[in-house]
Amino acid sequence: MRIKWMACLACLLFIGTVKAQILTGNARYVDPFIGVEGDGNVFPGACVPWGMVKLGPDCGGKESNSGWTTDGNIHGFSHTHVSGTGGGAKYGNVLMLPLTGNICLNDYSSPRSNEQAILGEYKVDLSRYQTKVRLTALDKVGFHEYTFPESKDAKILIDLGSCLALKMCETQTLVGSEVRILSNSEVEGYTRVRGGWNEGEAYTVYFYAEINTPADSIGTWKGQTLMPGVNNQFDSGERTGAYFCYATKENQEIKVRVGISFVSCGKARENLRQVTTWNFDEVHAQVVDKWNRILNKIDVIGEDDDKIKLYTALYHCYLQPTDKTGENPKWTSSEPNFDDYYAIWDTFRATHPLFSLLTPSVQANMVRSLIDIYRNEGYMPDARSGNDNGRVQGGSNCDILIADALVKGLEGIDYEAGLQAMLKNAEVSPGGNERKEGRGGLLDYNSLGYVSSAYERCLTRTFEYSNCDFAIATVADRLGKKDIADKYYRKSSNWLNTWNDNITALGHSGFAWPKERNGEFWSKDRYSVTERGNWENPTYETFPFELSFYVPHDMKTLIEKCGGEEKFVHRLDTFFTHKEGDQRWLIGMFQISNEPGFLIPVLYNYVNRQDKTASIVRYILKNRYKTTRDGIPGNDDSGSMSAWYVFHSLGFYPVAGQDVYLISSPVYKEAKVHLENGKILKIVAKKNNDKNIYVQSVKLNGKPLDKNWFRHADIKDGGTLEFVMGDKPSAWSCNGELPPSMSEI
Amino acid sequence: MRIKWMACLACLLFIGTVKAQILTGNARYVDPFIGVEGDGNVFPGACVPWGMVKLGPDCGGKESNSGWTTDGNIHGFSHTHVSGTGGGAKYGNVLMLPLTGNICLNDYSSPRSNEQAILGEYKVDLSRYQTKVRLTALDKVGFHEYTFPESKDAKILIDLGSCLALKMCETQTLVGSEVRILSNSEVEGYTRVRGGWNEGEAYTVYFYAEINTPADSIGTWKGQTLMPGVNNQFDSGERTGAYFCYATKENQEIKVRVGISFVSCGKARENLRQVTTWNFDEVHAQVVDKWNRILNKIDVIGEDDDKIKLYTALYHCYLQPTDKTGENPKWTSSEPNFDDYYAIWDTFRATHPLFSLLTPSVQANMVRSLIDIYRNEGYMPDARSGNDNGRVQGGSNCDILIADALVKGLEGIDYEAGLQAMLKNAEVSPGGNERKEGRGGLLDYNSLGYVSSAYERCLTRTFEYSNCDFAIATVADRLGKKDIADKYYRKSSNWLNTWNDNITALGHSGFAWPKERNGEFWSKDRYSVTERGNWENPTYETFPFELSFYVPHDMKTLIEKCGGEEKFVHRLDTFFTHKEGDQRWLIGMFQISNEPGFLIPVLYNYVNRQDKTASIVRYILKNRYKTTRDGIPGNDDSGSMSAWYVFHSLGFYPVAGQDVYLISSPVYKEAKVHLENGKILKIVAKKNNDKNIYVQSVKLNGKPLDKNWFRHADIKDGGTLEFVMGDKPSAWSCNGELPPSMSEI
Repeated sequence: MRIKWMACLACLLFIGTVKAQILTGNARYVDPFIGVEGDGNVFPGACVPWGMVKLGPDCGGKESNSGWTTDGNIHGFSHTHVSGTGGGAKYGNVLMLPLTGNICLNDYSSPRSNEQAILGEYKVDLSRYQTKVRLTALDKVGFHEYTFPESKDAKILIDLGSCLALKMCETQTLVGSEVRILSNSEVEGYTRVRGGWNEGEAYTVYFYAEINTPADSIGTWKGQTLMPGVNNQFDSGERTGAYFCYATKENQEIKVRVGISFVSCGKARENLRQVTTWNFDEVHAQVVDKWNRILNKIDVIGEDDDKIKLYTALYHCYLQPTDKTGENPKWTSSEPNFDDYYAIWDTFRATHPLFSLLTPSVQANMVRSLIDIYRNEGYMPDARSGNDNGRVQGGSNCDILIADALVKGLEGIDYEAGLQAMLKNAEVSPGGNERKEGRGGLLDYNSLGYVSSAYERCLTRTFEYSNCDFAIATVADRLGKKDIADKYYRKSSNWLNTWNDNITALGHSGFAWPKERNGEFWSKDRYSVTERGNWENPTYETFPFELSFYVPHDMKTLIEKCGGEEKFVHRLDTFFTHKEGDQRWLIGMFQISNEPGFLIPVLYNYVNRQDKTASIVRYILKNRYKTTRDGIPGNDDSGSMSAWYVFHSLGFYPVAGQDVYLISSPVYKEAKVHLENGKILKIVAKKNNDKNIYVQSVKLNGKPLDKNWFRHADIKDGGTLEFVMGDKPSAWSCNGELPPSMSEI
Repeated sequence: MRIKWMACLACLLFIGTVKAQILTGNARYVDPFIGVEGDGNVFPGACVPWGMVKLGPDCGGKESNSGWTTDGNIHGFSHTHVSGTGGGAKYGNVLMLPLTGNICLNDYSSPRSNEQAILGEYKVDLSRYQTKVRLTALDKVGFHEYTFPESKDAKILIDLGSCLALKMCETQTLVGSEVRILSNSEVEGYTRVRGGWNEGEAYTVYFYAEINTPADSIGTWKGQTLMPGVNNQFDSGERTGAYFCYATKENQEIKVRVGISFVSCGKARENLRQVTTWNFDEVHAQVVDKWNRILNKIDVIGEDDDKIKLYTALYHCYLQPTDKTGENPKWTSSEPNFDDYYAIWDTFRATHPLFSLLTPSVQANMVRSLIDIYRNEGYMPDARSGNDNGRVQGGSNCDILIADALVKGLEGIDYEAGLQAMLKNAEVSPGGNERKEGRGGLLDYNSLGYVSSAYERCLTRTFEYSNCDFAIATVADRLGKKDIADKYYRKSSNWLNTWNDNITALGHSGFAWPKERNGEFWSKDRYSVTERGNWENPTYETFPFELSFYVPHDMKTLIEKCGGEEKFVHRLDTFFTHKEGDQRWLIGMFQISNEPGFLIPVLYNYVNRQDKTASIVRYILKNRYKTTRDGIPGNDDSGSMSAWYVFHSLGFYPVAGQDVYLISSPVYKEAKVHLENGKILKIVAKKNNDKNIYVQSVKLNGKPLDKNWFRHADIKDGGTLEFVMGDKPSAWSCNGELPPSMSEI
């Protein structure tokens, strides 16, 4: 009840106080503050879908990946951010701040009040300076509206030395910066930064800014020294910036529009042509319009609370990767250029399959960008940010994106080149760059058939490589390359080489287990089925009990290895009920907070216990996703948690790299999905409510569907998926054809 | 005789016609045209020692690495070049051209006449336009003096799309460019290029130029379109440029000074502050002064012809690497920053040892820069250009530079970090980047003890890695790390694992021979002892007969493997006399044109047949180095051929990575080497002439030296090396202590 009330209040707040007329369509249901707290790390600032510019506040207080913190002072408003990520931070470049009085370069941050955000607009008051800020942003342009008090000493400060630099790990460091004031209303420059989460090489963010009010005087600064009247600072590897001075009247508005580029100041200036108005609301309306083109792809009949969850989740999914087409400083290409795959290890599971369903032409562009990165830099990324590959977490999961695109018929992709890129991953070791790209431990994997415990993340790698190999086989098969397909179908069984039948725990036998190079498994007491590892451990962000479910391409064999269907159901039951450790983000052992377990709730479908899938999924959708600031269970990870929500709330979930969707349990009475080809997929759930969560029957395009899954081809040209729901498990699909494994896929 | 006459004529030409008063000191003896033809690939333009700016002509006609060709039309004058290199080209950025009439963007090149060069000054007339050009350059500044005819339509053209892009291989491609005319006498911009010989990532060359004459009108251009009056072009991935228009009087001079930076336009502008004058000769005098600080380190009494050879060679040695300290766009560091190690595989043998002798503080800075590259990018380079590592040719020979520095007592280097960098090379495979950095085939090498024929360049790698491992042992030993030293001393014998006693050829048995991974040697007919390979072959730019001499750290064992001293002498004799193939650059089988054989002439010293060393070396110095345009035997390779000349002409030659110099035969009656510590090494050769090439006796600091070698410590604080020469081999050193091998080093 409390949650629902808060959601309604939030909704009222948006619609009531902040220029509601701008929020047309489903944009009304987006709350940018959902997920900003409680590890969600969501970016609450302004941007468009896949926007290169993400304009928002950078705050102190605690370390932050999104720039935002709950109550730290605001340092200013910078133009580049990522959303939902964990690990080290990235970006936070080209920071601006409206202030009054002297500039204290040591600490110019201010406490805040009246902080609000609606889709495409962030606003806040800075109490130290009595200034007010509104922000919005188009693809490559930030738009600032500052309201000043009466002051003889009002200023706009630009800091090109600021970036998000967490102290704990993977920090960013400034390489250099440069600024040039071109007139009393124009300034350009850049900031060059290296490092951050992906430990990437230096990237440069250029800007060109126009201010609608000519300054009375100007100045620049370097290091800790202000230089009034000096209109430029060259790059000497130090922190630089500029400032513009005004005598303001009470409530005087000064607006700044900022073109951003990763190529040059000239390109930043060109990018700024995207905005020709000084009217904030006009720009904001364009932002909302761009979002509604995404958000209006799904229409649902349901509770407001559920709509807020849905559209905010959908919004999160489309924050990244960022479209940097035309902004590549490293090579020329007629291919699209996307950056901030952060990380594909997170997003291949649900986010990209969601793109394949809702915006397949853009997903095709992303796959093309991945292949173009391979062409020009040697490897497709597992993660990429600031125009550089890194870091690889588990497998080379971009392989799965290519298979996913091919089996779903995405057009415009050079699949032959894609296969070459996949084979590079599978056959050429990245050497000492195992956290940057390619497959670490590949020499073991290709000679022994598994990654031995001599390598970090050995178990995760073996299991993920097996599924990636299946993706390679899938692509080779469809391209008619039978030899390659056969080889990789065989390799996709490599997970069996680390399966240890002798490990018994919690009533179950047989688990993924670390194995030495000499073929000997680790002793039982050297690892635990519930031991969650990280970079250096055998299981990455997972543990053997969870990882041992990850064979999406050959569930049939996995179930046999687990002792058959009955024992497999029991194993899943144990997984979702056994309690150990911090249960904040867990359901039993299931980490909804983290990607390795994303597929596990639907695995009941593989043993025709779809009722248990429905029960778990509906529980999570209702109880672990909220409309509060901590409403996302764990790092949103570039919309990964959110994509999980969107799919399941529609009633089905993709098996990435396959053309298969598994039925879970729809949240809405009715949903319409407006496909890119103009067709509509209508999902109706009769008698659906919070108690009637079990599927009683399904019709697909009017015909009874007696199995708990369907294929992409069944819905890609629209149609109707008609559920009848009830409050008890039914006989529906209990004897239906099982979802496919290996040769059937 | 003919050669001598030409040399005198050349000398006269310099001293007579081109403002001789500027050419003080030994600068008078430098002829920038020596080595520009006949594969020398020497850059004939203007620069200072290690200068980042190398300003010279870019010509058509044939493909060129230096920009210059014999008779192709001149496209213009660009600011960045390398000297002496083979393979693909690099640089040729920010091109300018004075012209009259319409600009034909398709082809604005002109035939040339009156082309001349003295140290620090290049001049030429462009007959198509009736314009004359003089160029000089300081570290980061290019200075152009253009003389126009009377013309209503005189122009200065700037092309930011031009770069040296050979078609044959490893080509450069334009990523983008941008230009902005700031006033009718100021312009800035950049060109961004990727690829080239080292297949490096994109680098950006920024410039800021001032013209001493305000233009009557200006324009810019993009692609093939001129845009009169338009003062800027943003980067859209295309070729851009600018032009300045004048109505000129007959012989009107217009001067342009151009700051160059690899960081930013602002930094380029800052760099231009290096030059405050518009007086060409004043700038040129500074250039000459900087050169004389190097060239005057050696004073010799000898023939003018020999002086021209010596000082031109010394000049070539100091063209590269380029000092880019303060110009690093990739990371910040208090360490020096050198680029254009192109390649260390060439220069570790003689060029860097020459730096260690003449300019040890700068050599220390170079080693520091290499270690800093390791710290920030993971590997020290074997080659590096455009701020990026690549390509590795044979071993990781930067290892040898660190050992060389340590054994010669170079100060200011963090040798502990250096050892870590060496161990990275030796222990961490570069994966698929085996041509970029690190050691290719390392997994074989570290498991089998040799690089198997499954890898390209397997034999070269095995032999070079063995010597590099000796360098690691040397450093570890001196740092007191006995375990590491012992391990690497052992590994330095790995060359023996590819020694095949059963290969017999040209009367000799036992050669380096390709070996399969299973331990089996290739059959005799599968390779030949005289088969010269390249990238993909077992022997890189060498052949088994030559490579089988390359064990500089353990000549004692090598001589045993060759059947003892007598057979070894015979093997060397065969090497220097057996004729096969194109003898243009050969002496017998000896390729003086290429680095793998650099050490072989002095190997006679290891069997106390120093007379044969003297004979071969003096023959080469006299007959294969000339004062003509084709006067360098093969690619000069960043001064590698030239450094070989300088050392041998002084009478000794370094064994890189050891503190050992082997005596050959001095060319000059007297030479004084002014060491950096203020001390003088005096080398006297009594009775020396073209016939008296054999050493009869040597005194070192007044004491008889009865062996054919000495250590760096013997000369690093100056002293006297006193030869008595004669026309026949003598008994001198015949029974002397042999140069050290392994444990004695």
